[in-house]
Amino acid sequence: MKLWDKGISIDKKIEQFTVGNDREIDIHIAKYDIIASKAHAKMLQKIGILTVEELEQLLGGLDVLSAQIEAGSFEIDSQFEDVHSKIEFELTKSLGDVGKKIHTARSRNDQVLVALHLYYKENLSLVKEKTQTLFETLLSLAEKYKDKVLPGYTHLQVAMPSSFGLWFSAYAELMIDDVYLLNAAIKTVDQNPLGSAAGYGSSFPIDREFTTKEMAFSTLKYNVVAAQMGRGKNERTIAAGLGGLCNTLSRFAMDICLYMSQNFGFVTFPDELTTGSSIMPHKKNPDVFELIRGKCNKIQALQTEMILITNNLPSGYHRDFQLLKENMIAAFEETKDILDIFNFSIQQIIVKDIDVHSNLYKYLFTVDNINSLVVEGQTFREAYQEIGGQVQDGTYVPDISKKHTHEGSIHNLCLDKIKAKFPN
Amino acid sequence: MKLWDKGISIDKKIEQFTVGNDREIDIHIAKYDIIASKAHAKMLQKIGILTVEELEQLLGGLDVLSAQIEAGSFEIDSQFEDVHSKIEFELTKSLGDVGKKIHTARSRNDQVLVALHLYYKENLSLVKEKTQTLFETLLSLAEKYKDKVLPGYTHLQVAMPSSFGLWFSAYAELMIDDVYLLNAAIKTVDQNPLGSAAGYGSSFPIDREFTTKEMAFSTLKYNVVAAQMGRGKNERTIAAGLGGLCNTLSRFAMDICLYMSQNFGFVTFPDELTTGSSIMPHKKNPDVFELIRGKCNKIQALQTEMILITNNLPSGYHRDFQLLKENMIAAFEETKDILDIFNFSIQQIIVKDIDVHSNLYKYLFTVDNINSLVVEGQTFREAYQEIGGQVQDGTYVPDISKKHTHEGSIHNLCLDKIKAKFPN
Amino acid sequence: MKLWDKGISIDKKIEQFTVGNDREIDIHIAKYDIIASKAHAKMLQKIGILTVEELEQLLGGLDVLSAQIEAGSFEIDSQFEDVHSKIEFELTKSLGDVGKKIHTARSRNDQVLVALHLYYKENLSLVKEKTQTLFETLLSLAEKYKDKVLPGYTHLQVAMPSSFGLWFSAYAELMIDDVYLLNAAIKTVDQNPLGSAAGYGSSFPIDREFTTKEMAFSTLKYNVVAAQMGRGKNERTIAAGLGGLCNTLSRFAMDICLYMSQNFGFVTFPDELTTGSSIMPHKKNPDVFELIRGKCNKIQALQTEMILITNNLPSGYHRDFQLLKENMIAAFEETKDILDIFNFSIQQIIVKDIDVHSNLYKYLFTVDNINSLVVEGQTFREAYQEIGGQVQDGTYVPDISKKHTHEGSIHNLCLDKIKAKFPN
Amino acid sequence: MKLWDKGISIDKKIEQFTVGNDREIDIHIAKYDIIASKAHAKMLQKIGILTVEELEQLLGGLDVLSAQIEAGSFEIDSQFEDVHSKIEFELTKSLGDVGKKIHTARSRNDQVLVALHLYYKENLSLVKEKTQTLFETLLSLAEKYKDKVLPGYTHLQVAMPSSFGLWFSAYAELMIDDVYLLNAAIKTVDQNPLGSAAGYGSSFPIDREFTTKEMAFSTLKYNVVAAQMGRGKNERTIAAGLGGLCNTLSRFAMDICLYMSQNFGFVTFPDELTTGSSIMPHKKNPDVFELIRGKCNKIQALQTEMILITNNLPSGYHRDFQLLKENMIAAFEETKDILDIFNFSIQQIIVKDIDVHSNLYKYLFTVDNINSLVVEGQTFREAYQEIGGQVQDGTYVPDISKKHTHEGSIHNLCLDKIKAKFPN
Repeated sequence: MKLWDKGISIDKKIEQFTVGNDREIDIHIAKYDIIASKAHAKMLQKIGILTVEELEQLLGGLDVLSAQIEAGSFEIDSQFEDVHSKIEFELTKSLGDVGKKIHTARSRNDQVLVALHLYYKENLSLVKEKTQTLFETLLSLAEKYKDKVLPGYTHLQVAMPSSFGLWFSAYAELMIDDVYLLNAAIKTVDQNPLGSAAGYGSSFPIDREFTTKEMAFSTLKYNVVAAQMGRGKNERTIAAGLGGLCNTLSRFAMDICLYMSQNFGFVTFPDELTTGSSIMPHKKNPDVFELIRGKCNKIQALQTEMILITNNLPSGYHRDFQLLKENMIAAFEETKDILDIFNFSIQQIIVKDIDVHSNLYKYLFTVDNINSLVVEGQTFREAYQEIGGQVQDGTYVPDISKKHTHEGSIHNLCLDKIKAKFPN
Repeated sequence: MKLWDKGISIDKKIEQFTVGNDREIDIHIAKYDIIASKAHAKMLQKIGILTVEELEQLLGGLDVLSAQIEAGSFEIDSQFEDVHSKIEFELTKSLGDVGKKIHTARSRNDQVLVALHLYYKENLSLVKEKTQTLFETLLSLAEKYKDKVLPGYTHLQVAMPSSFGLWFSAYAELMIDDVYLLNAAIKTVDQNPLGSAAGYGSSFPIDREFTTKEMAFSTLKYNVVAAQMGRGKNERTIAAGLGGLCNTLSRFAMDICLYMSQNFGFVTFPDELTTGSSIMPHKKNPDVFELIRGKCNKIQALQTEMILITNNLPSGYHRDFQLLKENMIAAFEETKDILDIFNFSIQQIIVKDIDVHSNLYKYLFTVDNINSLVVEGQTFREAYQEIGGQVQDGTYVPDISKKHTHEGSIHNLCLDKIKAKFPN
Repeated sequence: MKLWDKGISIDKKIEQFTVGNDREIDIHIAKYDIIASKAHAKMLQKIGILTVEELEQLLGGLDVLSAQIEAGSFEIDSQFEDVHSKIEFELTKSLGDVGKKIHTARSRNDQVLVALHLYYKENLSLVKEKTQTLFETLLSLAEKYKDKVLPGYTHLQVAMPSSFGLWFSAYAELMIDDVYLLNAAIKTVDQNPLGSAAGYGSSFPIDREFTTKEMAFSTLKYNVVAAQMGRGKNERTIAAGLGGLCNTLSRFAMDICLYMSQNFGFVTFPDELTTGSSIMPHKKNPDVFELIRGKCNKIQALQTEMILITNNLPSGYHRDFQLLKENMIAAFEETKDILDIFNFSIQQIIVKDIDVHSNLYKYLFTVDNINSLVVEGQTFREAYQEIGGQVQDGTYVPDISKKHTHEGSIHNLCLDKIKAKFPN
Repeated sequence: MKLWDKGISIDKKIEQFTVGNDREIDIHIAKYDIIASKAHAKMLQKIGILTVEELEQLLGGLDVLSAQIEAGSFEIDSQFEDVHSKIEFELTKSLGDVGKKIHTARSRNDQVLVALHLYYKENLSLVKEKTQTLFETLLSLAEKYKDKVLPGYTHLQVAMPSSFGLWFSAYAELMIDDVYLLNAAIKTVDQNPLGSAAGYGSSFPIDREFTTKEMAFSTLKYNVVAAQMGRGKNERTIAAGLGGLCNTLSRFAMDICLYMSQNFGFVTFPDELTTGSSIMPHKKNPDVFELIRGKCNKIQALQTEMILITNNLPSGYHRDFQLLKENMIAAFEETKDILDIFNFSIQQIIVKDIDVHSNLYKYLFTVDNINSLVVEGQTFREAYQEIGGQVQDGTYVPDISKKHTHEGSIHNLCLDKIKAKFPN
């Protein structure tokens, strides 16, 4: 059964090509189609298209399906091309003609669009919550390890003293910027598109303010053409948001993999979190963090896909849009996993003691030495020349006693202030 | 002169390779280096590193340079590798040792970073303002042309009735989503990074709250490592913001180019806004909108560049970051031009009368016909079959009298509500 | 069972995260692991590590598995992390210790790499073959419709006369360029990487020339470090190749969708190849070509993913590489389908008669008129002014009699020469 | 002066927006416009449109301009929109009406396209030559340092013995794959597009075989529509080629930056090739290689730009194409510089002695130990368990005597065979 069936048989191969794997993907949005269908049905009753009895029948039928979805027993069999046809079929099977009436004043594009808005909104909130959990874990780790010195590098060269406190909380504070983008994405999808029909609205006197409240959207995407043009544009924005977060996590994972290298040896993890080699018995590989890095980098590529699918297409719906959801939904599922795994794993981190008196690291303190001379009255340039001379002739002795006092520095992390910045 | 000169002559070719075209690019950020240098100097006086007299001398020297920048007479000669060395040189030339003191408690990375934050913040606000101007132009055009019918397409097939009012205001409302992203970018750069020095802070007792207020940043980027890691990450976010806006403009330009084609013939522009052909005397080409489309598509590619330059780099400064600013600043200058040109040009649009009674467009109204039958009591499916039958046997007569009433529909554009949604 | 099992239980969630969906993906490369395992076993016998009897046992065991793969009954159960562990397990189960011996002198990275080279090589050849099929179809269509006029556009404005012959054969000739890239990709993977072991070679006296011949590779990827660094780099090159082809197909599909629009009305397709609308009974949508366009655009984004996963990683294997194969293999499967569907569908195209005498198209011929005046002795600029004047004052009469004679022009398509250019 | 001037004054701002910086970019292609103009003029004489005398005048005029270009004194003043108008203007100024005749039977699009083909072809060859130079440098370095041990890493963990010989020659051999792509790009542009005019050919009896030979193209791009559609598609392919090479160089630069870190300390460079810090006197930063890495990563992003500018545009010329050349030409200039600088700098590399007996590196040899046990008769799995046990209980003694014998291994680099593989 296909909604647009005109009695003409379509070549099997073509059908498979056009339907693709919508059936598997649509399982993720089934729940949201039910929510939107209920809101739509209630609105239809309010404007007189459904009777109170019909509405009750429909809500009952939708509740049955909702329970199946919740229980994991809902399946989209191969006779249906998507979740929307399946739901209409089930309603019609159990309710007869009443089941057909729910399609009044909406189109399939409408259904897909509103279900995606709802899916995106809920999942962006989940991602934000999990980001906050990791953010707080990192702040705790920063507090716990605030006195553990870590060499700071620039150009991958030993540069100045840093600390595990600075390192953990740096990534925490960067996530705040990521949440700004996630919030922009949430605002974008927190607008009710239902009622745009095929992209040009409906001649039925539908009440979009009503469905907006019913589905708890903050506002309407008023213009029906704008609502449909959100296809692709929403995904682009979301991909920017997920990608920003993944950028932070990927770079964090890179640091971890590097710091686990024997040449750095700054951190390690329990055996449960590392893997061995099929030929080298001494290996302890950071596969989890390499996979986090790789998966995050994959997600960063998603925006290009979303842009390429929709770019330069004239306004109005195109079937190409159907291809947006597969990797978008996969990226959400992956991002949630990554955040869980990262939060779980980072708590197992074993932070090592690093001997800053070693020849490798003693130059970390040259700037502190210079600054002491400046405080004693030299100009910066003179002090730089003096300490530079000591480094060159081998007489340099590091001054590791210096305390940094300013906001956000190694000895004044301002963790509470960073915590307070996390956006609503 | 190079700040890091160690008395060793550097191969000329290498120097050119490393300096690149920083001198030209840095003209754009000179103004912001002055603002940050003044704030830094005032702070140095407050914490006792400069005397009141020294501060006054420095502020005076910086004002002289500021006036040159304002007047367009400031140049970065080839003996300097960037604007920062040039400014320090000029201060030292006119003020002697006092000129050198301004570099106390900051590093060049610090200067570049804070100047970029200031440049980005101001230019994002300019882009947002110009976006709002175009947004309001489009709403005016929507109001002006709200009664002009425009065929609505799906799959590029004639579908349902639309209007120029719907079309103009669709792009206006989509820009609201773009502003959500721009606002996220503004929040990201509206955090004071000054004081991160080389990325690990300073042992001087600098007062970052003071410079934050002095430069009118909303808050601090507290963690000094996070501040430096903003290099690349800020640009990534900004590129998402500019790219989102450009995505809207590019698709709008595509519609315009298509609608100017003789096969559509929906709009045209005065000769001043079109160009001819060197070999075809009848041509009237929409070059302006093609170039808007192309330039917007170029800017959409920028984010991939920003990601690729910084991706998988471990934490800490890398010289690669120096390459981020060239195309980022170029994109800002281009985006501002695009918005100006778009706003100027779209006001010259000539909207044509379209004969909806022609055979080409009469099927626009089939859904309205179906809906009328539904209101008279048929189920949607039955009505669909009936009108479908009329279409097939050639008896279909369009009903063009139907008024759409719901929010955001062709006859109820909700322009005031859309206008009220434009974000602060 | 995991090859690197050190007797430590790994958290279930972590395992799922690290294994991912390798089991499903690996089905595609199982066949190639068998081919490489046989070559490796024969080589081990040749250098004395296996006896002739052991070799025969192993080849027999591998043949059994090969038959299962061929028959579609081979499955990678959840106790195995990938196809390689599964095959080793099966061999050991049926052959005992001999089964274990096949892992001598190779590592899992080795196995994955050589299996991917084989998979890529075969599938690139398949893609090239299917490209040639479509290429020839297009040349036939060009021959068939060589006299059917098609308006030629520049800037989407009616420009000069074109023809369906020119249009079909243009896309054919562009595919030749795509094959240059595919051939580069084939050369890249047609180098035997087996023997690189974990990326640094083996201390066993393996014979790589032997396995190269056995697996019919054209040459060796000699350097073992280079061989392993092919991970990501091979995929990048292949993605460029598939992406180039998809770029051609996607633009062709765009033309088709546009030309099917009622406003152009140049082509159409039988109902079996179009789809209807759930609410508009008059619609005949080009979904197949929209999906081709969208899927091709998705594949064009793949290269960015391949680059992002591996970019800036130091030399040597990283687990991130495991993530390259999923979307790469999916892209191959998709590309082969797209080529089949395109080749099938384009043969059903219905080319319409276009009235070039209509007002819409008469200016197509202005350049031909100008050229006639030039042949009669005017300068081009003078003739341009004269015909331009006629266009402006409405006296222009098109000259549609002009024959174009040069190579590759509308009346001299050179189809045989284009056909002869198709690269081996 | 603009070629399409219809006597209408164009708003200044619009003009600047449309012309952009074509004047600066076009300097790079001026030389190639002259080459193509000469070939076109000779052909016009051959087919009787120019007299022998006219041809001589035109060739003389073009030679004058050619000499100016060679001498660097040729400039495109602000009254011209591009190099093509400038050249036509100069010819007309010096030769009168004859100067105008050269535009017969071609259009500006034609000129731009053929000039770009010629520029690309020559510059791709230059890039290939410089690649070969670097390739040979690397093979020499591999030979020179073939006995210097380098730890081999997988997952950034100490893994197995490698050598500087393996490392240098790995990057050399990878460049062979890059040349396959460059060759594909060369083949793509080594096809004569001249004669496509505005994209639909010419009604003049032009002789394209003649101009093909005259400009030394290998073949024609026959189909005139295909020739014009090369705009964007050529650039896409070239960007894949340059990007592939840059991918190799960028990863090489990453290795160098990492190996220069004090924590590895495997290589260093003379002071002339490193830079210092404005605040840390002990720094010796690998700026040259960081900039190579960054610039290469930028160039890798170019393909996305090329795709985005042209994707989903229907066939036929669009003004957007004008935007392709700016960053494409910049990328060529940058790539040539990168190759020169890389080749110059890598020869200065100082390779350090690495103590493989240190605790840090002794596990490099576990696989060699295992393999010895296998040769003595143990199964691989048993030997793996035994050596693994020694590692765990601290009794492991590395066997560093093992010689690797197979092709491409540490002790059998096959440098001659790699050298012989470099493609023509």
